[in-house]
Amino acid sequence: MGRRGIFLGLLLVHILVISVADTQKENLYIWPMPVSVSHGQHTLYLSNEFELKTDGSKYSDASGILRDGFSSILKIIKGDHVIEDAPRFGSYLVIKGIHVVILSPSDELQHGVNETYRLSVPVDGNPIYAHVEAQTVYGALHALQTFSQLCYFGFETRVIEVPQAPWTIFDQPRFSYRGLLIDTSRHFLPLPVIKKVIDSMTYAKLNVLHWHIVDTQSFPLEIPSYPRLYAQRRGIHVLAELDVPGHAESWGIGYPSIWPSENCRQPLDVSNDFTFKLIDAILSDFSKVFKYRFVHLGGDEVDTSCWTFTPHVSDWLKKRGLNESGAYQYFVLKAQQIALSHGYEIINWEETFNNFGSKLNPKTVVHNWLGGGVAQKVVAAGLRCIVSNQDKWYLDHLDATWEGFYSNEPLANITKPEEQALVIGGEVCTWGEHIDGSDIEQTIWPRAAAAAERLWTPYHNLAKNSSEVTARLANFRCLLNQRGVAAAPLAGPGRVAPLEPGSCYKQ
Amino acid sequence: MGRRGIFLGLLLVHILVISVADTQKENLYIWPMPVSVSHGQHTLYLSNEFELKTDGSKYSDASGILRDGFSSILKIIKGDHVIEDAPRFGSYLVIKGIHVVILSPSDELQHGVNETYRLSVPVDGNPIYAHVEAQTVYGALHALQTFSQLCYFGFETRVIEVPQAPWTIFDQPRFSYRGLLIDTSRHFLPLPVIKKVIDSMTYAKLNVLHWHIVDTQSFPLEIPSYPRLYAQRRGIHVLAELDVPGHAESWGIGYPSIWPSENCRQPLDVSNDFTFKLIDAILSDFSKVFKYRFVHLGGDEVDTSCWTFTPHVSDWLKKRGLNESGAYQYFVLKAQQIALSHGYEIINWEETFNNFGSKLNPKTVVHNWLGGGVAQKVVAAGLRCIVSNQDKWYLDHLDATWEGFYSNEPLANITKPEEQALVIGGEVCTWGEHIDGSDIEQTIWPRAAAAAERLWTPYHNLAKNSSEVTARLANFRCLLNQRGVAAAPLAGPGRVAPLEPGSCYKQ
Repeated sequence: MGRRGIFLGLLLVHILVISVADTQKENLYIWPMPVSVSHGQHTLYLSNEFELKTDGSKYSDASGILRDGFSSILKIIKGDHVIEDAPRFGSYLVIKGIHVVILSPSDELQHGVNETYRLSVPVDGNPIYAHVEAQTVYGALHALQTFSQLCYFGFETRVIEVPQAPWTIFDQPRFSYRGLLIDTSRHFLPLPVIKKVIDSMTYAKLNVLHWHIVDTQSFPLEIPSYPRLYAQRRGIHVLAELDVPGHAESWGIGYPSIWPSENCRQPLDVSNDFTFKLIDAILSDFSKVFKYRFVHLGGDEVDTSCWTFTPHVSDWLKKRGLNESGAYQYFVLKAQQIALSHGYEIINWEETFNNFGSKLNPKTVVHNWLGGGVAQKVVAAGLRCIVSNQDKWYLDHLDATWEGFYSNEPLANITKPEEQALVIGGEVCTWGEHIDGSDIEQTIWPRAAAAAERLWTPYHNLAKNSSEVTARLANFRCLLNQRGVAAAPLAGPGRVAPLEPGSCYKQ
Repeated sequence: MGRRGIFLGLLLVHILVISVADTQKENLYIWPMPVSVSHGQHTLYLSNEFELKTDGSKYSDASGILRDGFSSILKIIKGDHVIEDAPRFGSYLVIKGIHVVILSPSDELQHGVNETYRLSVPVDGNPIYAHVEAQTVYGALHALQTFSQLCYFGFETRVIEVPQAPWTIFDQPRFSYRGLLIDTSRHFLPLPVIKKVIDSMTYAKLNVLHWHIVDTQSFPLEIPSYPRLYAQRRGIHVLAELDVPGHAESWGIGYPSIWPSENCRQPLDVSNDFTFKLIDAILSDFSKVFKYRFVHLGGDEVDTSCWTFTPHVSDWLKKRGLNESGAYQYFVLKAQQIALSHGYEIINWEETFNNFGSKLNPKTVVHNWLGGGVAQKVVAAGLRCIVSNQDKWYLDHLDATWEGFYSNEPLANITKPEEQALVIGGEVCTWGEHIDGSDIEQTIWPRAAAAAERLWTPYHNLAKNSSEVTARLANFRCLLNQRGVAAAPLAGPGRVAPLEPGSCYKQ
């Protein structure tokens, strides 16, 4: 059959359209699963001069975000393989490049930025181009990530193959906040490690790096702008946390006067104006660097008992007619006002809601962590919520399984649409007591990916039984390994070594 | 004081000369410790245009090994830090570049290649250059690695600092074979992972990657030249292993006729000519790609009992008048002859020596693994030896501590110089039953580094008590983390998570 014959054959090919309910059973290895996917049965080959084309785009890419995204993805697709020339397959089977059309000229990365994209890989065209249409460059970056998961190095053909073409994919996230917490207070995390965490987040379409910078143990803060800029270029918001008034003992190493006393080093001294001046100064610095709509003010695990044992604090409480819990509320609300004055909305851990929810500023997002069932109370009270219940979504809990990460539903028992809308998303947390540059990757992955699908994929596309997605998640874990990310096997608890010899896809 | 005044001051500065015996106590953080080190008390700063100068070198660097090595090292030194302009410190404190003089025009990487180097960082010169003199480019690469360990990012100055200058270092390895085994048969190791292992080996001056490619579980062999070429450019020999006649069941998936029978799948069929034809074909392919002087032919853990239960093999044995152990010897020696015919010298696991040592070809290197005390017997028999006793130097033995790795002496009880010379080195082994891309880095490091110093540093410079080097090894481990290598904490067994919050340097 001559070239024309094959060409016509391709045009007439029967295109398998996968209904969403079928996505788990199908031979489809995209993680997280998009809103809708249809595909065919043909294999195309990537040109060795695979290129980015942007004609018709309203986005100028002056900052190079799209170009960088494209070259990163191309690097990931090619891996370290020795790739031969694709054109020997005949140009009618070769994808020449990807044509990206972005409708918005702005690349401001703000909460709720439009992340929608359409991706298609046709089997015709002379030459063939993949097509992306997105409202913003951040949607386009997601499209490139998805495209990278359609590509495989062919060990026999020695070129990059795109099987199951033609592809038509529409996609957008279920939740706008899809977070991962890292903790640089308990252990230093070198910059290359943080950058790799950020890159790996983009593979799973997570989009908020919650940076727990400061805690009891250390105050490694210099308001560094470099990681934030790096993250933003990849579509990742950086949520900076200043956890007050507890978890803050380390502040007093530099400023001992904000310790109530030598024996009462936290919570910070509520009676000292300097405490709030310092918070104000830090948040002022934050606001110059961390441009996300939110700042995290902590507020968790505050044991106020030593305030009452410290004479000058106790006197101050008496003068104001405040008991311990009133003073805790006073501190949190005052810190909220400072954050608001710097243009931030606030995220606070759930204890603030549990203790004085009705007093919290309406711009507060309550960050659940203690257990399940909190979100429904928060949204019933009209506040927004982020879900991180520790029994399911704490990555440092090694006994929390990927199945538990997958099946943890943020909207459980929340039925009213207006209340559902108040759950802005969820976050998996990598508290750093036992985590440093030596073990963070396998603590995070693959379990964070299980949560990432829960946060990205429409509810009706999610597997009701996590066993339906085991093979696809294993595939994603192997993909992470191929990209140099040390994702652990699925079998067993978190951060586990492989149990026995065998294929990555079965571990 | 004007510029001239400081300049003279620097010239007259008292230079601390560290005697070798003092190296463990001194504030010296080089790993592995060089042959001799002297240094001063001044801090210099790296120019932002730090450059490589090669005038006077006899090495043309046509293949770019030195240029690549220089740019890799510069990247490592700079890390991801945001570095400011050094010249503001006054050019008399700024190191403008490194001047590398290589005496040999050849960059052939063969066993025993000269790895000697001299490195100096003077405090005078206008401008100041660091100096390297080496016989070969591979010695120069070691010098660059050592130089990188003299450099620190100054968090206050925001430039790369070289404290304790001036430096004068002379260095050469104690053993020419300093190996690390990886096992891609039990688990697939993606290329980026292997490349990172190779890069991290160069940090510790290990120089042989022993690649256990094929085993019972899989035969993932395509004679790929890419990793070997990558390794060679970094001064790393690749020792390919074809383990016969045991550990070879997987061969029969493609070639069932070399299984003695369905129920006797290994050892390979000693009675079948095709077995040896296949070995010959593979070694012929090996010889085109793996240019190291040695090939590893395995020979370990051979259970020959099923040969006697298999009628045609049993008949063949009878015809030849061979018992099981005679047939094992026949197989090994025949494989040796094939390897010799392809220009290789041979490495065999110690069972071959233990069973018929006097019959081994004199070009055999015996690879110890079962336990201590073997090397002395091997060298007494006039053969060469590599030490890998599993109780101390198997990295997959997680209960083997870094202290044990450090103190394992390859020349224990070998006193005659001519016998000592037959111990060509040692190797640490990362058998892959429980190791894949998710945990290999922390299984290897930092324990492999402890062995690396044993294999590099002159005996009289080694700590008699490993506790003397704890701080320096912890420093090296943190350096690995900063370079993005997931080296585990020192405290506890192998591949352990950090026990508690705290500084990397204390874990």
